[in-house]
Amino acid sequence: MSQSQHSTDHIWDTIRQEVETAVANEPILASFLHMTVLRHKSLDDVIAFHLSSKLATSTMDARTLMELIREALDADPQIGEAMRADIQASFDRDPACTTFSTPLLYYKGFHALASYRIMHWLWQHGRQTLALFLQNRISEAFTVDIHPAAHIGRGIMLDHGHGFVVGETAVIEDNVSILHNVTLGGTGKETGDRHPKIRSGVLIGAGVKILGNIEVGRGAKVGAGSVVIEPVPPHVTVVGVPAKIVGMADSAEPALDMNQRFDCRGR
Amino acid sequence: MSQSQHSTDHIWDTIRQEVETAVANEPILASFLHMTVLRHKSLDDVIAFHLSSKLATSTMDARTLMELIREALDADPQIGEAMRADIQASFDRDPACTTFSTPLLYYKGFHALASYRIMHWLWQHGRQTLALFLQNRISEAFTVDIHPAAHIGRGIMLDHGHGFVVGETAVIEDNVSILHNVTLGGTGKETGDRHPKIRSGVLIGAGVKILGNIEVGRGAKVGAGSVVIEPVPPHVTVVGVPAKIVGMADSAEPALDMNQRFDCRGR
Amino acid sequence: MSQSQHSTDHIWDTIRQEVETAVANEPILASFLHMTVLRHKSLDDVIAFHLSSKLATSTMDARTLMELIREALDADPQIGEAMRADIQASFDRDPACTTFSTPLLYYKGFHALASYRIMHWLWQHGRQTLALFLQNRISEAFTVDIHPAAHIGRGIMLDHGHGFVVGETAVIEDNVSILHNVTLGGTGKETGDRHPKIRSGVLIGAGVKILGNIEVGRGAKVGAGSVVIEPVPPHVTVVGVPAKIVGMADSAEPALDMNQRFDCRGR
Amino acid sequence: MSQSQHSTDHIWDTIRQEVETAVANEPILASFLHMTVLRHKSLDDVIAFHLSSKLATSTMDARTLMELIREALDADPQIGEAMRADIQASFDRDPACTTFSTPLLYYKGFHALASYRIMHWLWQHGRQTLALFLQNRISEAFTVDIHPAAHIGRGIMLDHGHGFVVGETAVIEDNVSILHNVTLGGTGKETGDRHPKIRSGVLIGAGVKILGNIEVGRGAKVGAGSVVIEPVPPHVTVVGVPAKIVGMADSAEPALDMNQRFDCRGR
Amino acid sequence: MSQSQHSTDHIWDTIRQEVETAVANEPILASFLHMTVLRHKSLDDVIAFHLSSKLATSTMDARTLMELIREALDADPQIGEAMRADIQASFDRDPACTTFSTPLLYYKGFHALASYRIMHWLWQHGRQTLALFLQNRISEAFTVDIHPAAHIGRGIMLDHGHGFVVGETAVIEDNVSILHNVTLGGTGKETGDRHPKIRSGVLIGAGVKILGNIEVGRGAKVGAGSVVIEPVPPHVTVVGVPAKIVGMADSAEPALDMNQRFDCRGR
Amino acid sequence: MSQSQHSTDHIWDTIRQEVETAVANEPILASFLHMTVLRHKSLDDVIAFHLSSKLATSTMDARTLMELIREALDADPQIGEAMRADIQASFDRDPACTTFSTPLLYYKGFHALASYRIMHWLWQHGRQTLALFLQNRISEAFTVDIHPAAHIGRGIMLDHGHGFVVGETAVIEDNVSILHNVTLGGTGKETGDRHPKIRSGVLIGAGVKILGNIEVGRGAKVGAGSVVIEPVPPHVTVVGVPAKIVGMADSAEPALDMNQRFDCRGR
Repeated sequence: MSQSQHSTDHIWDTIRQEVETAVANEPILASFLHMTVLRHKSLDDVIAFHLSSKLATSTMDARTLMELIREALDADPQIGEAMRADIQASFDRDPACTTFSTPLLYYKGFHALASYRIMHWLWQHGRQTLALFLQNRISEAFTVDIHPAAHIGRGIMLDHGHGFVVGETAVIEDNVSILHNVTLGGTGKETGDRHPKIRSGVLIGAGVKILGNIEVGRGAKVGAGSVVIEPVPPHVTVVGVPAKIVGMADSAEPALDMNQRFDCRGR
Repeated sequence: MSQSQHSTDHIWDTIRQEVETAVANEPILASFLHMTVLRHKSLDDVIAFHLSSKLATSTMDARTLMELIREALDADPQIGEAMRADIQASFDRDPACTTFSTPLLYYKGFHALASYRIMHWLWQHGRQTLALFLQNRISEAFTVDIHPAAHIGRGIMLDHGHGFVVGETAVIEDNVSILHNVTLGGTGKETGDRHPKIRSGVLIGAGVKILGNIEVGRGAKVGAGSVVIEPVPPHVTVVGVPAKIVGMADSAEPALDMNQRFDCRGR
Repeated sequence: MSQSQHSTDHIWDTIRQEVETAVANEPILASFLHMTVLRHKSLDDVIAFHLSSKLATSTMDARTLMELIREALDADPQIGEAMRADIQASFDRDPACTTFSTPLLYYKGFHALASYRIMHWLWQHGRQTLALFLQNRISEAFTVDIHPAAHIGRGIMLDHGHGFVVGETAVIEDNVSILHNVTLGGTGKETGDRHPKIRSGVLIGAGVKILGNIEVGRGAKVGAGSVVIEPVPPHVTVVGVPAKIVGMADSAEPALDMNQRFDCRGR
Repeated sequence: MSQSQHSTDHIWDTIRQEVETAVANEPILASFLHMTVLRHKSLDDVIAFHLSSKLATSTMDARTLMELIREALDADPQIGEAMRADIQASFDRDPACTTFSTPLLYYKGFHALASYRIMHWLWQHGRQTLALFLQNRISEAFTVDIHPAAHIGRGIMLDHGHGFVVGETAVIEDNVSILHNVTLGGTGKETGDRHPKIRSGVLIGAGVKILGNIEVGRGAKVGAGSVVIEPVPPHVTVVGVPAKIVGMADSAEPALDMNQRFDCRGR
Repeated sequence: MSQSQHSTDHIWDTIRQEVETAVANEPILASFLHMTVLRHKSLDDVIAFHLSSKLATSTMDARTLMELIREALDADPQIGEAMRADIQASFDRDPACTTFSTPLLYYKGFHALASYRIMHWLWQHGRQTLALFLQNRISEAFTVDIHPAAHIGRGIMLDHGHGFVVGETAVIEDNVSILHNVTLGGTGKETGDRHPKIRSGVLIGAGVKILGNIEVGRGAKVGAGSVVIEPVPPHVTVVGVPAKIVGMADSAEPALDMNQRFDCRGR
Repeated sequence: MSQSQHSTDHIWDTIRQEVETAVANEPILASFLHMTVLRHKSLDDVIAFHLSSKLATSTMDARTLMELIREALDADPQIGEAMRADIQASFDRDPACTTFSTPLLYYKGFHALASYRIMHWLWQHGRQTLALFLQNRISEAFTVDIHPAAHIGRGIMLDHGHGFVVGETAVIEDNVSILHNVTLGGTGKETGDRHPKIRSGVLIGAGVKILGNIEVGRGAKVGAGSVVIEPVPPHVTVVGVPAKIVGMADSAEPALDMNQRFDCRGR
């Protein structure tokens, strides 16, 4: 059992209450919610059960995956803590998200990130082949292709989820918000450090491609559909194919505001 | 049984004939086609069976989903009518689509839209949690993330299907054609009316992002890859990141012509 | 048994050795790897088993699909040879790919291309309905929508895999590299030759849309996020929405170098 | 909806209460009980769902079977009434059975009999092939092989369930109790009326074989392990291989008392 | 392909016709019958598909089993011939069996015997562990426990199927009929030849136990429920616990007549 | 982890070696054996995985059952010890059983008894409803119907397994051997102590029915097919319908010798 489950777990307590209400109101979901949430003793158990439901196939048994996920959560309590911060991030930043149980149960972006966190732990502990297997399953189940070696902080909101591609040496710091279809890609076939570094507080719009070992500075905003091939200074807004600076970001941490609009009059 | 099944149902009659021919020609599909189409008495029953096959999981039984879909189709005959108009739209506008049964059975875009129509009915009838569950399943199964509260008219062609993202307060009127990877997104984390309004006859190219509570006027055309952050007048063509007007649309209803090219010489 | 399995099959021999090592190192994968790889006598058998695991559904039995895939592989040995060339392409061009078994087992792009090759053979042999069924399954399982009539050469690397859309009359020659979310689309609703022709050695970046019956010449490079609506001469680099020539490609066959960066100073 | 569901259905009302208590007490069963019982509107719906769960296979979809069972229950309300009488019989006669929900959910004998009642209706309505399919599934799922043409009354307790074999022209009247491994067999390969007739109130012990077109009279008792090849008069007890009369039955309706002992001193 | 499939295969031709009629008459079975019968090219393929459907589990893939069964059928054509003789036996001797497809598709006794024939071939070819696996699956799926080393001839009717137990050194010659719940058991814990030898033409009634290395002579009849612990001469009828001779059998080959009655007046 | 797993576990060590040999010799089983045995750290884990594979259904998830079985094994180490004694009993007494892994993996009788031991623990800890659920699943999966309240000692061999019926107040002491189709039944519909008591060392032949609260004394032998309705003194052999004493048992503990023959000359 991870440390995060000791004493009080506010998110878990709230989720149980939310789910009990949902069971009472929606008989069709009662079976799913009992099996996935209510019969478990901790949020870590719920996550292990729910992700294994989504990642299992006819050739990889759900029981095996569930145990594997628990092994990681038990070994490193920081994994569970990062997942809680991701749930909190969706709750805080997504106006359509009004409960903690919504991202836990229904947000593909959360499922992909949570699965990445397990896969990354495996990679760090020398289990490369198993990590590759999971990378494929995450790509199939959630349309998200994150290299298991990539580093991703906590408090990440991956909105809508699909189409996210992250390369081997990419880094994403804490408190970043990323819309769908974003690529943090490398370039060329040499190995070595070749992928973007996204600093904290950054907001990346839908369909953005950031290519090569370049930095997107703290609190920057990248407008939807942009292709970024040069470093982005902190706290600016960039837009276009290729992306150009069009002004300052409209807040210190655009990730928290989720304001995806940009003013191009200065272009 | 929905009203649309009464008296004659031309699309259903035609589909049965098409499928009987397919069974005779392709033994490998006979089992699937009998189970999914031929043993049923109405098109609504086929849709309920087929969508439930695609949306069921190890934690949500196909029987439960099938009954739920039928409940919606029985309660509101306009849902089935909208689905028929969507089938007709693919038949009329997609040169690769030569039968009614092709979109019904094989077009992911149709499956996603049809599932949205059920989910939207649930949302309107106070079953928000169940709608969220379906939103997740539609996202996983079809890579389409439509908020259940969004309003979408009939006669919609969602070509290729994947990557479609539609926000809570978006509106799509009748007879619109939308390629893959299109986003009708909000911006910011305030609630309220914050998503695009797409008027009838519009054609939206692949990869387009339209952000904020802005209107794309009747019969407009948005070129592939564009990012639209300002209102688009009726009957013009816009292109680019961010999108600019490059000319008039080449027909009154670009959605019906599916001409995705645009002339940029005037830019 | 296809001709490619006779005498020596270097890729198959290497894959068996790689997988035996993986089984010894990773007990959780042993079951999957024995079932999928080690119990089989040829690479063709492995491919038939593995693809059928991924394409089967509750309404289409895995046994039926496995036999169908074998039927194609046995009938036309060039299909298996093209698959081997695709595996070799990922091994040569992707710095994160260090074994032959990785694309075979875990690369969604390879799975989608391999499934296309089976589907294309069916289409060529008059089994259109079955090809449509598979087109839908490939779209659902891998988020790749290739029309079964499209022509695709060998030695193709489809990196990350998801979001690839290829129209009916498109042609992709040998030794092309294509990132995710690329569209080779038609335009308009007339039938006839209406999709792009991609010549050998081309590199197409993430999110590129190429629209209409236009040619992208040998060894050209198309920058990420570009929308191409005019022919691209050989050996140039094009970028933008719409795409413009920004210089010469930095090598004779950009597909082999995978250098996705581009220099826009000349724009 | 069958007539038996109109107005009040005491057994259904009681079962719902019992199951609600079970859900509250046993979280592990909550999912199963919600899916199988609580989300349904009538006992007929529960039976259709539960039997289809048990009879479905990888080649016969649960949805198809559920609809078939409902079709029978809707067409002939006497089927549902007979099932209720069977539930009541277990409740009245089996000291280990203290709730109505126990036979409904957990007694293989009830499941086999209920499935027979559906199969018999199909046989009577000219659907012989489908009845044969179900006969096989009932045999596999419950180890009970009843010919679909056999006639079986209501208020039957089939205790423990397995090994029951009933031939084509057998008749079992109302209020009979039958232990496991009982055979009502024919003999010879001629067609025609060739199987036993069991009158009301009879108790048949474990492992009994009754062979040929012979009558077991009202209120008779057949001791465990007996082989009966001659008619049995009313209200006697028979025992042995072959069975002989050893005395009078100890009550008017041995089926209701379930006293399987017999006194052989008179033999 | 086994030799038995060459040139004409009367049983297969007839079964195809029967099944085509069934598909036309019973839409609910069309899917099952197409998948299991009509899409295949030979009876051996049907058997391999059908048995693998019944023997597969969540931990043993149906594709693997199907290939294994085909391997045996291809290697030894006598296996397929024995299966055809078993089908013919049910057709000839069971008055309730009026088509060849009935035992093939729906008789558990046939499925158990056919599975035994595959398992026996494996045992003979040194694959003991795999044979033990199948022995367990046959026991679970059909309630029949035959030791893989036992020898069983052709033209066997195993009526109703369940409860059959056959020990390691038992022999059953051709043209024997066996009702349900029959045991051919050993006794003691020494190894060596210790099970019954059943000669041709014998009829064994329901629930019979024959124990030890004793012979039941040609054309003998063993009455239902008997326990046989001494050799039975040819052409007699034995009955009782323990079994005694009660007269001559009423035909030369009781197995063909299926007259399970016996006259005990001489006892 | 149960106490039985601490320090050395001879049976588990031996089973691992046996299974490693089997994997090397039989590729088709490698997947099953890795998943079920080799990837686990203790025999208890193997049992929990294997039984949950067999008891899971479409409405009861294998993960839930696996956790439940582990909960019981962890809570009471005597359960695991009894299972080891049952494995040892088959190894010692069944001449066809030459490895410890054979009963563990392939003997239905062992699976039924092991499942009973879990169910009995649940019953003893106040979880009656869950025990009833498992009673039904054990009956369906193994054709064994043991009331969860019955008391069964250790070192039990349940040979062939199917058809075993044990009532609520039955007692079976240690070191008993029981063939298939044995009934330890009650009689009448009163509650209270009403089922047989089987003392240690007893051998019960195939198809035996023992009815009522009667004792079968230490070291007694009950011949196949007998119906026992009176107490059996220690160390005698009884046979017949109804059973009579025919002599002394031929050893002190007939259960260990498995000599099922009996001499009736004295009858």
